[in-house]
Amino acid sequence: MSRWRPDARERLEAAALELFERQGFAATTVPQIAERAGLTTRTFFRYFADKREVMYAGDQFPALVARIFAEAPADASPVDLVTTSIQRFSDEELEHQRDTIRRRSAIIQSDPGLRERSLRKRADLSEAVRDGLLRRGVPDRTAALLADMAATVFEMALSEWIDGDGERALSVLALENLNLLREALAV
Amino acid sequence: MSRWRPDARERLEAAALELFERQGFAATTVPQIAERAGLTTRTFFRYFADKREVMYAGDQFPALVARIFAEAPADASPVDLVTTSIQRFSDEELEHQRDTIRRRSAIIQSDPGLRERSLRKRADLSEAVRDGLLRRGVPDRTAALLADMAATVFEMALSEWIDGDGERALSVLALENLNLLREALAV
Repeated sequence: MSRWRPDARERLEAAALELFERQGFAATTVPQIAERAGLTTRTFFRYFADKREVMYAGDQFPALVARIFAEAPADASPVDLVTTSIQRFSDEELEHQRDTIRRRSAIIQSDPGLRERSLRKRADLSEAVRDGLLRRGVPDRTAALLADMAATVFEMALSEWIDGDGERALSVLALENLNLLREALAV
Repeated sequence: MSRWRPDARERLEAAALELFERQGFAATTVPQIAERAGLTTRTFFRYFADKREVMYAGDQFPALVARIFAEAPADASPVDLVTTSIQRFSDEELEHQRDTIRRRSAIIQSDPGLRERSLRKRADLSEAVRDGLLRRGVPDRTAALLADMAATVFEMALSEWIDGDGERALSVLALENLNLLREALAV
């Protein structure tokens, strides 16, 4: 088995997902995942802290959100910043891997520990949006409220997108939800 | 020990809170709570399914939210319905028991099972708001978004209220948060 391959991470993710689907999350071990990917257990641990983490390519997400915020125009309003970050995050990171995300979502629903970790990941993402807004001078309470609202809007779109037929992009669904909320609150 | 007293529920709640604070949630048993309240274990189970439920006088909350919605004027807009229900719920149910809620909140934070149940209770409350909006003819997605946003706004106000000095009412803090969000989204 080669000790390093350029696609090791992707191979491990694919192998884990297949095994989780076939034999269940709890019954699958790290050595099984590594073997299926044609890699060593040691290589596995170079990429992931444990078998749960294989389900979350998402640890780079907060950093990505920070970058998207940093790249937004200086005169963007807080809601523009939220809109842009939802849109870019969806289009650049998630849209092309709908099938994988859908399959992961089914595994996550099957395991309480994974469900709990998902809540924490959601909180991390919302925290990244909040930090981005704070760094742009948005006051504390407004930043926290907008970040939590962004998480709501995004999460609802995510489940519509996963359950749907893939005809409509995640970012379209998310921005539709944001606009529905804005209209409802504008009355 | 008398088998029925008009204030049995309140006595059990007070006894449980004292014991949880003194010896910890995990170490406290139902017989201990009943004894401290001067009641039988059997009486305890007439009011609560288990010792966790003593922390949630809240099982009637969804029903209360439904009643508040039913009593709102026929021409109230969706956001007016949300505003009214947050305001009445805060003023009529929570404002007068800030000290108890603050003490309960500290116990809940100390126990993972209680934290999890709190998330479920939050979801029930959000569901009640959503149902109330649906019954008023608000479209499905808007109802779900507004209900989740109401939960965000309310929860943030709740922790500000608990951590604060009690000078400002919960409903004032919640409506302030709602207005901050409305203003940020209106831009």
